[in-house]
Amino acid sequence: MTDQAAADLWPIEHPGTHPGAHAGVHAGERPEAARRLLLAAVDSFARRGYHATTTRDIATAAGMSPAALYIHYPSKAALLSEISRTGHQATLDLVENAAHTDGDPVDRMRRLVEDFTSWHARGHTVGRIVNHELLALPEEDFAVVAELRRRIEETVRRLIDEGVAAGSFDVPDVRTAARAVTSLGIDVARWYSERSSESPEELGRRYGVLVLRMLGASG
Amino acid sequence: MTDQAAADLWPIEHPGTHPGAHAGVHAGERPEAARRLLLAAVDSFARRGYHATTTRDIATAAGMSPAALYIHYPSKAALLSEISRTGHQATLDLVENAAHTDGDPVDRMRRLVEDFTSWHARGHTVGRIVNHELLALPEEDFAVVAELRRRIEETVRRLIDEGVAAGSFDVPDVRTAARAVTSLGIDVARWYSERSSESPEELGRRYGVLVLRMLGASG
Repeated sequence: MTDQAAADLWPIEHPGTHPGAHAGVHAGERPEAARRLLLAAVDSFARRGYHATTTRDIATAAGMSPAALYIHYPSKAALLSEISRTGHQATLDLVENAAHTDGDPVDRMRRLVEDFTSWHARGHTVGRIVNHELLALPEEDFAVVAELRRRIEETVRRLIDEGVAAGSFDVPDVRTAARAVTSLGIDVARWYSERSSESPEELGRRYGVLVLRMLGASG
Repeated sequence: MTDQAAADLWPIEHPGTHPGAHAGVHAGERPEAARRLLLAAVDSFARRGYHATTTRDIATAAGMSPAALYIHYPSKAALLSEISRTGHQATLDLVENAAHTDGDPVDRMRRLVEDFTSWHARGHTVGRIVNHELLALPEEDFAVVAELRRRIEETVRRLIDEGVAAGSFDVPDVRTAARAVTSLGIDVARWYSERSSESPEELGRRYGVLVLRMLGASG
């Protein structure tokens, strides 16, 4: 999976064609049939739950035969793995971009929280599937995803460390603070919906303010 | 379901006999067989996932026949409903107790966050099932649980309002702040495990500090 393909599956831009089900999944650099299958898998998992979904459901939703599905993905789990791995890689990219940009730790943390929050609001359907079905991943894919999650949290922790060293943050326990920052953003995928009164961007701004307070930001 | 029964199913005290699977489920005021079935249901849902679990799995885990299970619960969904309703009722009780105790809004919010956080850490197995399988509930039970969840968040929001009115909190958007406070606590059930380095109580204290900062507490 290239970074480009990951970015295509989880675009920053909402594709907008079918907000409820497709938010966060889009696909560019794949054969058209594979893209249709990924979108159909997200729709089906969101509607029926992962476990109750069959490969036949997904093929039907994509307007294809089960045999045609197997050309691209050997199993339902392979579809989940691709959705999960590309989603986590794109999330790590977004967090690293914010953490390693120019600016002081306060500005970078604000951007990190804004981007991480609005990303989970925009991609809440995919985010919910991915976060709740981690244990359904084949072992090898689970290990890849677990490593990506570890790196996301480590990036947040290092930025807090940097801010503490610079005197910009005042945090009694960096590890717990980093956990709270990522937890707040991830949980947005659980509760956010198109009926929520704030836009993803507005929620990101509000969470940015709350998190900087939590970190005792003086910047 | 009486309050006593709810408290028995979701005790503040960890039963301790089987930490991974039973945390948060205990049962006093029920027939022994019903209690065994509830514990077996939590074990089975946690191990296999709700959708892949059969009533036969649950009966077997409880050392009973499927026919004996049906005497107490007509379906797998009825077991989930009882677990979910009693858990949410006990959570609301805990939140209301903290919010309506003596003391200023800062002290009450600290206690609320400490209790709510350690509760979700201690009962993470049950909490995860309950939070992820809301859509598996029969419609009527879903409505009951949704109302309990609404009241939990409303209780938090009113306590923030009270603190703002008293000059103890400084919060730009009370609704978003209340959402963030409940979200942080609920998400603990997703990530906490017996391997976590902090005890539920220690995590509660740390989250109490972080939340009071988030609310601009001056108390």
